[in-house]
Amino acid sequence: MCDHCGCDNQAGHEHRTVSIEVEADVLAHNRDCASAIRDRLAAKRMKMLNIVGSPGCGKTALLTTLIPKLTANRSCVVVEGDLATDNDAIRIATTGAPVYQVMTGTACHLTAHEIDHALSHLPEEPGSLAIIENVGNLVCPSMFDLGENLRLVCLSVTEGTDKPEKYPVSFREADVVVITKSDLDPYVDFDLAACLQMIDVIKPGMRCHVTSAKTGEGFDSLVSEIERLWEK
Amino acid sequence: MCDHCGCDNQAGHEHRTVSIEVEADVLAHNRDCASAIRDRLAAKRMKMLNIVGSPGCGKTALLTTLIPKLTANRSCVVVEGDLATDNDAIRIATTGAPVYQVMTGTACHLTAHEIDHALSHLPEEPGSLAIIENVGNLVCPSMFDLGENLRLVCLSVTEGTDKPEKYPVSFREADVVVITKSDLDPYVDFDLAACLQMIDVIKPGMRCHVTSAKTGEGFDSLVSEIERLWEK
Repeated sequence: MCDHCGCDNQAGHEHRTVSIEVEADVLAHNRDCASAIRDRLAAKRMKMLNIVGSPGCGKTALLTTLIPKLTANRSCVVVEGDLATDNDAIRIATTGAPVYQVMTGTACHLTAHEIDHALSHLPEEPGSLAIIENVGNLVCPSMFDLGENLRLVCLSVTEGTDKPEKYPVSFREADVVVITKSDLDPYVDFDLAACLQMIDVIKPGMRCHVTSAKTGEGFDSLVSEIERLWEK
Repeated sequence: MCDHCGCDNQAGHEHRTVSIEVEADVLAHNRDCASAIRDRLAAKRMKMLNIVGSPGCGKTALLTTLIPKLTANRSCVVVEGDLATDNDAIRIATTGAPVYQVMTGTACHLTAHEIDHALSHLPEEPGSLAIIENVGNLVCPSMFDLGENLRLVCLSVTEGTDKPEKYPVSFREADVVVITKSDLDPYVDFDLAACLQMIDVIKPGMRCHVTSAKTGEGFDSLVSEIERLWEK
């Protein structure tokens, strides 16, 4: 009989209880750090986005299309999170926005402490926008507040209709959903209406933008969504 | 000055050292459990696959195409891992293979202990194949041995060429790469040759199969790859 879950297995098992206690401690520290970042940026009328989503869902392509539209109104800086390589930072740099790459090694998400570090390497112009591209992962980053004002979860049409239902925490913890790669819709079995309905069940009233970095679809409404942050 | 990393930040920070010690403990328990499973299955001439990959990379579609081809030779059972829903188990059940759904809640990967539980709910026929479809995540499942004999990492052409380089651990820890959704290749900027070259740098000699569950491409070689497990 297993001591931990009462099952019949004699084999080794994880000490989940211990793991969860440490996790709670880590999350509490992270929250404090995130709050401090948010307060500091607020004093400069700066806003911050945290962009999460699966590997290859189009987060970087979204940014290389979005940033030139945003910089018409205000300057932007970008923090890139990846386990390895600075491939994405190089792509972002083509927009002219200052960018800082955080390499997380084996860690599956960014932490507020890493964002604090990263921001210290970037200009913090009053009224500007900081954008975080999180590690590609539709699970773990959802637990970590990074001090952002708006969290966007990206979902590409190639990933399938049922992802909001299968990864509910990432969608529940986000403020806005960005459906990406709408140009591929004719070639995949993605049911947009069903997906939007599913999102509305998980988080009623959630705002969704359907976009394509290839055709430019949906970017005007996304820019307006972000600009509204300064009206609050 | 931060005590943990020596940086100038006064704000909260994570106790990574503590976290890593607990992680090492968890991983050691997991390894013991995985070894016990592997030994138990070996005594029955059973083999097990562990299929990992991003959300929506086509793991379930791969299986619904693959299983009917495998069951010509031997019976298969499937363990499905998801945070929420039994959507995938329902899809797998259409193949006739017995399937057990593990819902991980907020956990980003399956553990050997969960596999041990799941297998106790499934037939363990001598000479049969057990298949694990892991939680959609290209980071965390790579750390957890589940007692499998072959780990397949899936990468869809829609995710982009550079994913092996950006998520090296998942590729290094796998035995075989399965490129999925090759039918979408004409519509995306995926460079297969460059991707294969990148994989060969990360893990020289890695075997790769280019597949499409829509056209059936690559499934004969994948079935042969799996059947070779019994020749060892």
